[in-house]
Amino acid sequence: MKAIVHVQLKPGVLDPQGQAIAGALASLGYDEVTGARQGKVIELELSGTDHALARERVEAMCGQLLANMVIEQFSVEILD
Amino acid sequence: MKAIVHVQLKPGVLDPQGQAIAGALASLGYDEVTGARQGKVIELELSGTDHALARERVEAMCGQLLANMVIEQFSVEILD
Repeated sequence: MKAIVHVQLKPGVLDPQGQAIAGALASLGYDEVTGARQGKVIELELSGTDHALARERVEAMCGQLLANMVIEQFSVEILD
Repeated sequence: MKAIVHVQLKPGVLDPQGQAIAGALASLGYDEVTGARQGKVIELELSGTDHALARERVEAMCGQLLANMVIEQFSVEILD
């Protein structure tokens, strides 16, 4: 079983890395880019077959380690 | 228009950050985690309405700046 976790900065939180990307793309001539935000995606390989339990456990992992809940939000997708 | 770019290490490329995540989760008691890989996701705000052109341009951005094509692979999703 596999879990895909997306972790992004909450809307409104300043994203200097995204701003750097947008600036660099503009300076390369991609002036259609009006903004950029960067997040991370973590792919977990999981043993077990219970999707509901897996989701619960992965959400706990996010709260404890994978995301900083003060400034970040996450979403979890469970795949076979 | 929005573009979502996923950048991941190619399969087979060593991912020390993913290994650190898997190790930390195991030490927190999440022993169902058998592996982890970390990638990044970049959300671009784009002006214009031509999806095909946008995809072509974003793929060029990946080759030039957003991904290191030696060790990384990317996928592009264009949204309204």
